[in-house]
Amino acid sequence: MSDTYVLVHGAWHTGAQLEAVADVIRAAGHTVHCPTLAGNRSGDDRSRCGLEDAVASLEAFLTSNDLNDVRLVGHSYGGMVISGVADRVLPRLRRLVYVNAFVPLDGDSLNDLVPPHYVTLFDAVAEASDGAVMLPFDIWREAFINDADLQLATSAFGTLNPHPYKTFTDRIVLARPLAALPLGKSYLNCQQDTALPHSLGWHPRLSERLGLFRLVECPGSHETWFSSPAVLGAAIIAAGRD
Amino acid sequence: MSDTYVLVHGAWHTGAQLEAVADVIRAAGHTVHCPTLAGNRSGDDRSRCGLEDAVASLEAFLTSNDLNDVRLVGHSYGGMVISGVADRVLPRLRRLVYVNAFVPLDGDSLNDLVPPHYVTLFDAVAEASDGAVMLPFDIWREAFINDADLQLATSAFGTLNPHPYKTFTDRIVLARPLAALPLGKSYLNCQQDTALPHSLGWHPRLSERLGLFRLVECPGSHETWFSSPAVLGAAIIAAGRD
Amino acid sequence: MSDTYVLVHGAWHTGAQLEAVADVIRAAGHTVHCPTLAGNRSGDDRSRCGLEDAVASLEAFLTSNDLNDVRLVGHSYGGMVISGVADRVLPRLRRLVYVNAFVPLDGDSLNDLVPPHYVTLFDAVAEASDGAVMLPFDIWREAFINDADLQLATSAFGTLNPHPYKTFTDRIVLARPLAALPLGKSYLNCQQDTALPHSLGWHPRLSERLGLFRLVECPGSHETWFSSPAVLGAAIIAAGRD
Repeated sequence: MSDTYVLVHGAWHTGAQLEAVADVIRAAGHTVHCPTLAGNRSGDDRSRCGLEDAVASLEAFLTSNDLNDVRLVGHSYGGMVISGVADRVLPRLRRLVYVNAFVPLDGDSLNDLVPPHYVTLFDAVAEASDGAVMLPFDIWREAFINDADLQLATSAFGTLNPHPYKTFTDRIVLARPLAALPLGKSYLNCQQDTALPHSLGWHPRLSERLGLFRLVECPGSHETWFSSPAVLGAAIIAAGRD
Repeated sequence: MSDTYVLVHGAWHTGAQLEAVADVIRAAGHTVHCPTLAGNRSGDDRSRCGLEDAVASLEAFLTSNDLNDVRLVGHSYGGMVISGVADRVLPRLRRLVYVNAFVPLDGDSLNDLVPPHYVTLFDAVAEASDGAVMLPFDIWREAFINDADLQLATSAFGTLNPHPYKTFTDRIVLARPLAALPLGKSYLNCQQDTALPHSLGWHPRLSERLGLFRLVECPGSHETWFSSPAVLGAAIIAAGRD
Repeated sequence: MSDTYVLVHGAWHTGAQLEAVADVIRAAGHTVHCPTLAGNRSGDDRSRCGLEDAVASLEAFLTSNDLNDVRLVGHSYGGMVISGVADRVLPRLRRLVYVNAFVPLDGDSLNDLVPPHYVTLFDAVAEASDGAVMLPFDIWREAFINDADLQLATSAFGTLNPHPYKTFTDRIVLARPLAALPLGKSYLNCQQDTALPHSLGWHPRLSERLGLFRLVECPGSHETWFSSPAVLGAAIIAAGRD
């Protein structure tokens, strides 16, 4: 049976970086799309682009391609975006899959869900760079892609793009709690993901906001898209299937 | 060396559903029994059968078969039952093994150890069905057997039986705390088991009630009996051996 | 690229017991040293030897062998010792790697970081044995080497040596917090390590004291040095590399 997956990237990423995992899912017979959100596209004005722009761009992608029975997968910041779009395109969706992704309540910003010292760091960076933030390499290497060697950590870092900070500070609007949406929800937790410290981690702190949900776990860091695409692809299928 | 294992099933199950795992343990040279507890046998009066009936039926099984040096393994609700029988048949036991199982203190009911919304759900179901409760399929599929595909989730669900709710509300009587019993104790934690939410989980919340115990972990859901019998069988041996 | 590793053993151990893992790391092309700390050497006066003696002996080892660019790995109690030496030999170090190891703040003793009932147990043992403590076999077998069979648990236990208790009660002196030291830090967590109970565990409780650090995890108990040297060796390389 061929399922339809849409993979939604996180901050600093584009859809292109998810293609290695998409190919693993395609090899199992499924259709996979990896759109790039507004704010992370070349030419986007990163000083003005906000969360609603990103959500609207995903809505436009789903409707203009007339996608249905979609298993909508969000990574990290992408969890904010799939959460924001879900209720608007509900008839097109089959299941939401959060991959070490933010699960907001109505009114939450991404910054409300991370440790205060992250906010302090990004506030300073954003002020110095007209609203676009980059992740410092040492944080990337140690806390985001801890399962890679230095060569892969460096080459992957080179493909990132500055992220519009307004998407971290804008508050999301949810007509209903995600737990109340009548569709399946899964949370995929990469077990060594320390992009959030485990004392204030992804699972179960954020995953259990989904109400009834399916937990899938696999080894790996926040950036298994680069370090373990085969493992992550198989785990996304286990999370996304009926 | 041939050891003797007795595997005690959880709620909604019978011993027959543990046979695939029992066969894995037998293939390693051991003797394995999978009795079905009072309350889950065909013909049992599920409106009246309580925790003491289940405990007494396990005691009768161990004594009538004159089993000794038993490694007594309880899954889920089966943890209540092996806890209740342990002190009564102590000379017959070698070790207690809890597999994502409840570990009560004296006076606890199973319902005292689960989230309040489970109790609310089961109270309503029991009232509508003369004291026997079934697990809704969507909870089974997402939270109990999250590591299976839909086909296995469906076929396994078809083998379950309605469970006597009185066994969830009866308070257990323990002459001594389990930690004080002079025999080995192990806790086997299937890592993706979300039958209890991880914010109110099996391990370490319940496992550490055993005092000094041996932790063994393996990947899998609450229902690895169906989804990964080879992995679970090997883990039970690692938990049950001297 | 050949890196230099120094593996620092835990309480009751000597460097000899780390050689199986050292050989795994050497087979990947690296240089590995396994010194034995003052206090655990044959002939040491275990009634008087303290934490500063152990730290000074490690400092002497690093300087007398003129080691540089060292990836300094501490296991368990060895975490106290590498923490104590780090600031003194900073120019010789490349990275600190804690393997289920204690991460102290200035003024902490090891006993400050373990459950109170451990302290009570060791206080009594130390009083009865002129300041040297042994680990009771049942705690070793169930909580320290839970992933081994009884034969390995027994043979490994036979290689342990009585540990000078003063090293557990002495307070460490740190000129700066470890998080402030300008070198890489990693925490390697063996996932079934219950030498500390998981309700008061190694990670993230102690690991996050390192500030920015790299998390690596592998399956295994506190004594994977004996039970899984190949797995542990590979994990140490993943933790210790640049």
